[in-house]
Amino acid sequence: MNATTASPAGTVGIVAPQRAQFDTPLALRSGGSLPAYQLVFETYGTLNADASNAVLVCHALSGSHHVAGVYADQPKSRGWWDNLVGPGKPLDTHKFFVIGVNNLGGCYGSTGPMSINPATGKPWGSAFPFVTVEDWVDSQARLADQLGIRQFAAVLGGSLGGMQALDWTLRYPDRVRHGMVIAAAPKLSTENIAFNEVARQAILSDPQFHGGDYYEHGIVPTNGLRLARMLGHITYLSDDAMGEKFGRRLRHGEHKFHFDVDFEIESYLHYQGDKFAGFFDANTYLLTTKALDYFDPAYSFDGDLRAAFARAKAKFFIASFTTDWRFSPARSRELVFALLHNGLDVSYAELESTAGHDSFLLDDPHYHAAMRAYFADIEV
Amino acid sequence: MNATTASPAGTVGIVAPQRAQFDTPLALRSGGSLPAYQLVFETYGTLNADASNAVLVCHALSGSHHVAGVYADQPKSRGWWDNLVGPGKPLDTHKFFVIGVNNLGGCYGSTGPMSINPATGKPWGSAFPFVTVEDWVDSQARLADQLGIRQFAAVLGGSLGGMQALDWTLRYPDRVRHGMVIAAAPKLSTENIAFNEVARQAILSDPQFHGGDYYEHGIVPTNGLRLARMLGHITYLSDDAMGEKFGRRLRHGEHKFHFDVDFEIESYLHYQGDKFAGFFDANTYLLTTKALDYFDPAYSFDGDLRAAFARAKAKFFIASFTTDWRFSPARSRELVFALLHNGLDVSYAELESTAGHDSFLLDDPHYHAAMRAYFADIEV
Repeated sequence: MNATTASPAGTVGIVAPQRAQFDTPLALRSGGSLPAYQLVFETYGTLNADASNAVLVCHALSGSHHVAGVYADQPKSRGWWDNLVGPGKPLDTHKFFVIGVNNLGGCYGSTGPMSINPATGKPWGSAFPFVTVEDWVDSQARLADQLGIRQFAAVLGGSLGGMQALDWTLRYPDRVRHGMVIAAAPKLSTENIAFNEVARQAILSDPQFHGGDYYEHGIVPTNGLRLARMLGHITYLSDDAMGEKFGRRLRHGEHKFHFDVDFEIESYLHYQGDKFAGFFDANTYLLTTKALDYFDPAYSFDGDLRAAFARAKAKFFIASFTTDWRFSPARSRELVFALLHNGLDVSYAELESTAGHDSFLLDDPHYHAAMRAYFADIEV
Repeated sequence: MNATTASPAGTVGIVAPQRAQFDTPLALRSGGSLPAYQLVFETYGTLNADASNAVLVCHALSGSHHVAGVYADQPKSRGWWDNLVGPGKPLDTHKFFVIGVNNLGGCYGSTGPMSINPATGKPWGSAFPFVTVEDWVDSQARLADQLGIRQFAAVLGGSLGGMQALDWTLRYPDRVRHGMVIAAAPKLSTENIAFNEVARQAILSDPQFHGGDYYEHGIVPTNGLRLARMLGHITYLSDDAMGEKFGRRLRHGEHKFHFDVDFEIESYLHYQGDKFAGFFDANTYLLTTKALDYFDPAYSFDGDLRAAFARAKAKFFIASFTTDWRFSPARSRELVFALLHNGLDVSYAELESTAGHDSFLLDDPHYHAAMRAYFADIEV
């Protein structure tokens, strides 16, 4: 480590999103193609002369391109991984040029179901094509081309973001030196898919969904999205963490025998659900859960994950959290075994945690120390 | 054991529900009272001369009084615990007089939200009072009075049924000799309550719910009930069991890039949700999940479960299943420790299983052998 990382870690400060336009059609896994599209992204730090210090941060279900820093005049707009990315932070912007990008199909500015479909002049809505992890990675590779980045020093992400990092190492093995996969899994389990499907059914069956073309009706399927998010939140937290934070604490100090809030956990879920339904797009939620369900690098290898990773060349950092029951440590170990089988260089951290799946967003000292050490060793 | 239990275990055969009328108001925990009510119940076996062989089976969320046997001309109407109850079965109807009763607030014939409110001449709907585990047990005690049963040889149940068995040992210590608590917990965890709340919100927010008075509109909140049941089903099964049964098997052999069924697990959930929404009452579902949330015998003892059980006198049989993550073995052990602390006689079986919470309904040989041995030792 150099002197910079020893100084107090700071923020990247005021940031602003940028926009890239792509006019070459993007072929999609679902069979169609997107004729033209835009990606919204942010960058932190400075790309070095040989463009060898670029790191791509991929986001999870509800994340965005806004990874670090704050927007001018919006002091509460801190990026979702700001505790990790910045000058002197584990992903040190004195050393690395860091890129966050909103995925295609998203609702934070990249082309998605809310965007205007040039063919109709109306929002894409239900006509927006299904996008997959592979499609996202392809579109990110084009963004790298535009930015003059031939090879990333690292591609990383947590949860669904980790799946994108995995796909980078498989489909662009010469364009990524380090794949960093946090709190992820090589594919969803049956239970994971089941939870996603309940969330989708909540949205699809909301009378305000209108088959995905709710924009035209001037409404959104708030209720379905709210239910989906409440359910999701349960799976992001651990039973222990919820127990410690809320227990069976009562809002009114006694059982009220009504269907309003009795227990504080109910209030927490309502708050999270309402907040999310107020800004997130339901079509993006649907498409993203399907991308999660479909992701399976071993799919074309008869389920053999070891065979799937024969083409990978990157070095890997894999991390999991003990109380993460959405993507448990056992799922990360499957991945580690498949990588080791192929003689790949793997660092694996199985981290004690209480916060469940959400641990990957927190700044646990052991977790961040492991990340800091790994990034420090990456040559640029 | 006697010769009968050695012969091949059989069914109790054709059964028919009975109905008991109660005209003395029942005071409820929620503060109100139910002026008059009916309970629907079934019995199997014969009550002996001193009424010492009666066993009460309490049902869980979606169960009923129909515990064993079949209805005439309905060959598929086998009772929900028929594998346990019958001549020569673990709960042997040659020895015991077994009673199943539909709980108050239910939707299988006992007075509930679907019943006519005598004050209005319309279905109770939203006006039906909240009922608790304690209220159910009080109403069951009155049924026992009508049937001439002063003391039960055993009260048993799985899940929410086990909570009723627990309450019997606490509030009627002289009226139950054996409390048998299967796949239950002394109270819901924060996560348990959280899942219940998402299910309730799905129903409450269904436009067809009409504040609970949907009967008047000739519709039911099918969609909310369907979502609630799909979610519930995930928590009844283990991740492993779902993985073994469905894996990531595709309905059409390939990813279809649509929101209809892709994975077989989705089809299973839809089927279970649709079936349930076709016959179960949404108000009963809401009331029953609240009864689950509220149950907490340690509530009046500053959370001290050991103090709560100081008044119990029964002998206990507690059983849990290794893959039950809804009410894990750790929750049963809490109970066992509290009972042992009070010098009570406890048999505890922690059973290997793959089927999750639903294991209590299956006829695993070790599980049934333990139940058989325990029942065989009960003196009547």
